[in-house]
Amino acid sequence: MNDYQTPLTVQAIGEQGLLKRLQSFCPADLVGDDAAVLTVQPGRSLVVTTDVLVDGVHFSDQTTAADDAGWRSAAANLSDLAAMGATPLGITVGLSLPGDTTLAWVEGLYQGLTACLNQYNTPIVGGDVCRSSVLSVAITAFGDVEPHRMIRRSTAQPGDAIVVTGVHGASKAGLELLLHPELGRSLNADDRAALIQAHQRPTPRLDVVERLWAGVRSWESGVGSRELEFIPHPSPLTPPQSGSKLHPLPFPSIAGMDSSDGLADAVVQLCRASGVGARLERSQIPIPSALAQWVQPEQALEWALYGGEDFELVLCLPLMQAQALVQQLGEGAAIVGTITDEREIWLVDRTQTMPDQQLTLERGFQHFGA
Amino acid sequence: MNDYQTPLTVQAIGEQGLLKRLQSFCPADLVGDDAAVLTVQPGRSLVVTTDVLVDGVHFSDQTTAADDAGWRSAAANLSDLAAMGATPLGITVGLSLPGDTTLAWVEGLYQGLTACLNQYNTPIVGGDVCRSSVLSVAITAFGDVEPHRMIRRSTAQPGDAIVVTGVHGASKAGLELLLHPELGRSLNADDRAALIQAHQRPTPRLDVVERLWAGVRSWESGVGSRELEFIPHPSPLTPPQSGSKLHPLPFPSIAGMDSSDGLADAVVQLCRASGVGARLERSQIPIPSALAQWVQPEQALEWALYGGEDFELVLCLPLMQAQALVQQLGEGAAIVGTITDEREIWLVDRTQTMPDQQLTLERGFQHFGA
Repeated sequence: MNDYQTPLTVQAIGEQGLLKRLQSFCPADLVGDDAAVLTVQPGRSLVVTTDVLVDGVHFSDQTTAADDAGWRSAAANLSDLAAMGATPLGITVGLSLPGDTTLAWVEGLYQGLTACLNQYNTPIVGGDVCRSSVLSVAITAFGDVEPHRMIRRSTAQPGDAIVVTGVHGASKAGLELLLHPELGRSLNADDRAALIQAHQRPTPRLDVVERLWAGVRSWESGVGSRELEFIPHPSPLTPPQSGSKLHPLPFPSIAGMDSSDGLADAVVQLCRASGVGARLERSQIPIPSALAQWVQPEQALEWALYGGEDFELVLCLPLMQAQALVQQLGEGAAIVGTITDEREIWLVDRTQTMPDQQLTLERGFQHFGA
Repeated sequence: MNDYQTPLTVQAIGEQGLLKRLQSFCPADLVGDDAAVLTVQPGRSLVVTTDVLVDGVHFSDQTTAADDAGWRSAAANLSDLAAMGATPLGITVGLSLPGDTTLAWVEGLYQGLTACLNQYNTPIVGGDVCRSSVLSVAITAFGDVEPHRMIRRSTAQPGDAIVVTGVHGASKAGLELLLHPELGRSLNADDRAALIQAHQRPTPRLDVVERLWAGVRSWESGVGSRELEFIPHPSPLTPPQSGSKLHPLPFPSIAGMDSSDGLADAVVQLCRASGVGARLERSQIPIPSALAQWVQPEQALEWALYGGEDFELVLCLPLMQAQALVQQLGEGAAIVGTITDEREIWLVDRTQTMPDQQLTLERGFQHFGA
């Protein structure tokens, strides 16, 4: 990989030269025309999401190597697809580059993008490069989903349990360690590396989408596609018997989104979209054990609620399904609270040691805020 | 519209405030979740294209008001869909904005975007806004197309006629008039306005896609979808008669792309992708009459070939279909040359007054070039 020692810039190689190099990261049959062509399976809906990441805002040389920037960009978009319950089909990449950006950086970015995407068999299907004084990466990801398996923000119901699919606060902790290497001296090397990894190489929870429906199958051919059986749920009905005609369990409606802007933001957004409230139990919010050892509980909770970029899913579903899901997922997944028919969102302490605290959007991550 | 007098900035209104304002430009049922949901009709392929436009590179305050920047951004992407033979489904918009960008500018951009998109019933289905020191607009457009109606770069055949769907050079001329208002004093006000309009408000040729197939219908239900009759083409076969079983005319294969980077670039790209050459006849390249009156023929030809951003289509198809298409389109559409089995692309002069000239990609528009 000689290029990594040569300060070859995009200006020197030119637009066509750069595009040719970048096309080696894309399937040959998908690129080279005015647009990419993909197939959406009949009966599935197309899901589209877009994100812009800017040098100095979303990543910086101090905390993010080119390949990490690529991984994070891909992960953020795949996480949005997971948040819709969708399976990825492909992404496009729009690059704005200063002329003195090195080819090595751009290829590193693409290596990181494809390293993340390859885990989910997702191709880069096209893109654009153009000159700018600021480096930025605009990604649009698309996926597809059966309409009745779509996860929406607006369908949370009072009484639903609120599930988080993993720990929160790790990404923010990793960022702090990168920005202030003098911190966290009490951490062992493995824990430190794991927190940094959580920031640099987050995992979009497409695996949750798969597992969510892995136990679901239609068990009667004469029944519509919305009427399915959710296996992990201990059914209140007589189990289906061969040849018998039973009323199927209604398909569970799952509301949810990802926690890219923080767990608190996700709960507030879900409640606002669904016209409901929530009560979160402080002690139930899963925090990485390394974090619990390193910082005070209040600090850990702050990072878990407001740190952002953990890219977990926050899902609202009936309690019994929620319990089955948490059991299936393991690894920090937990029921953290309940959807209520109030309008407020409260963080409560079961032990009544800490006062109840109200969560609002204003505390959340605000890109243009002061 | 009080906002247009108030220097309200995106920093002052905040990300959530800005998103709320921008959502008023989007259909309510399509936005507000982690991703937008669209339907691709069964049997149609999804077509995806992306473009990044940067302040100071693709538009500037001197030549482009916010609404014009919006219109041009939408038109460029819709043109890519037209170049694939696709019908638009929607676009996403990724905005990078300096904090001191006025809300008026952003709303102007969206007004221009929707003014162009509304002509084609195309919604903005989602987007992202983020802070940057440079203003840029990353657009991804989605469309769909029946696979056998797809227009590709790689299928031009020796013997095909090369059709352009309208005049070339107008956009570059308009840009020159905007940059140098002292030029073109010989132009009358209408011609001047028309050239500037061609630069500021280009028309994506989705109408050509419609007209291309308007004359085509499947005329025998037992026949596969690729076997259709092209009506404008004087058929060498006996015309179909009610009840009779005739061999249908094979569906015409159409190669093509748009001329966003110039007519010369389009022909070179088409030839390269198809492994063919071309001969273009200098006198047949349609140049706006106003341009012919204003500048020398060599200058007009230069702008027509290399100016770019006319957003016409360059199509390669059998001569008889090409003649029928040109007749249908009118308004400057013309056959400008022929695809050859050589590798070179020549600009020739039928009158042999000018020497033959070879076209290469290097003369074309190069974003990172010197």
